[in-house]
Amino acid sequence: MMTDTSSEPHPSRTKILDASLQVIRARGYSATRIEDVCAEAGLTKGSFFHHFRGKEDLAVAAADHFGAMAERIFSAAPYRQLPDPVDRLLGYVEFRQSILDRPVPEFTCLLGTMVQEAYDTHPAIREACDRNISAHAQELQRDIVEAREVHASEADWTPESLALYTQAVIQGAFVLAKAKGSHHVAVQMLDHLQRYLRLLFGRSDPRPTPP
Amino acid sequence: MMTDTSSEPHPSRTKILDASLQVIRARGYSATRIEDVCAEAGLTKGSFFHHFRGKEDLAVAAADHFGAMAERIFSAAPYRQLPDPVDRLLGYVEFRQSILDRPVPEFTCLLGTMVQEAYDTHPAIREACDRNISAHAQELQRDIVEAREVHASEADWTPESLALYTQAVIQGAFVLAKAKGSHHVAVQMLDHLQRYLRLLFGRSDPRPTPP
Repeated sequence: MMTDTSSEPHPSRTKILDASLQVIRARGYSATRIEDVCAEAGLTKGSFFHHFRGKEDLAVAAADHFGAMAERIFSAAPYRQLPDPVDRLLGYVEFRQSILDRPVPEFTCLLGTMVQEAYDTHPAIREACDRNISAHAQELQRDIVEAREVHASEADWTPESLALYTQAVIQGAFVLAKAKGSHHVAVQMLDHLQRYLRLLFGRSDPRPTPP
Repeated sequence: MMTDTSSEPHPSRTKILDASLQVIRARGYSATRIEDVCAEAGLTKGSFFHHFRGKEDLAVAAADHFGAMAERIFSAAPYRQLPDPVDRLLGYVEFRQSILDRPVPEFTCLLGTMVQEAYDTHPAIREACDRNISAHAQELQRDIVEAREVHASEADWTPESLALYTQAVIQGAFVLAKAKGSHHVAVQMLDHLQRYLRLLFGRSDPRPTPP
């Protein structure tokens, strides 16, 4: 998913991308200066411009870097091994909740942060954010298709819309966590998402059973 | 709710606040320059600095201006007259959907946009956004308290958390609308919120009945 198509990205490039995740999530895209990212990465502006044409180029690559990181984290999470698709969906939300217990800039979403402010002024950033949010939703959509066939085959909603809805709730939970300066409200919001999924798939037990 | 406590705010002040709503929702807080707001308002920087100490001062006043505008719009909406609290909640979501059919910068939320990027760097803006999001949620909370007593008195969720959840879904729907450059996904997301509320309050009919 990275714009650098070589199989082994240069270590400085990766350092800059990792640094940009921290700085942009803490300050937003527009307030982030290339100097801030270089300082966070411990690299020079010369090194930066060796790898990126400018800040927008960095942001597009950072969106793909963030998407690839999320894919690694979620595909390796224990809930992915659960045999039942409803358990995997509920497990996904629970796993999301389990990784919220840290400072706000560390659990919030680079993609939602950047697209919120840059959607109209930077079409390339909007497109990169959409691509990575949608790719993450498509992973969930597979489980939703399976779960819907077994438990909700007559439902009047589409798997695509429900997959996107999980992401809308998560993005909104991050906005409220930022407004309230705490992850606690985000945990509560994901409890409601859990409850909705249980209601849709006829699960009355409060938590997925272990495998 | 405005920081100007006089009963009749100066017309230039209101012009600047209205202009800031448009510019910040289109570009984000950090990318907005005072010059942009003055140009949109058709006023000089001298006029601006007569009313505001600077951009952060404007943003805090704009959050309260936006909150007051929302209060006027929602308190005058027809669904507020419905006698049943569940009908009012479902009517709120439907009304939200009905005002999405316009360009993205015109239906998205100033508060969610600003807090997304400024939450950590501008505590006064974070506080103003939280205050106005929470005030809007508290209006819904009254209906939720009533509806819960009648239809869900044994529920394991609090009215406060459900009121905030409606706002999380709306904020997340705006993030997705920005990512996809269309209000259609936001309409779909609010359909899911409608369905959740109907499930919680035992409403199987797809829409609230007219009074």
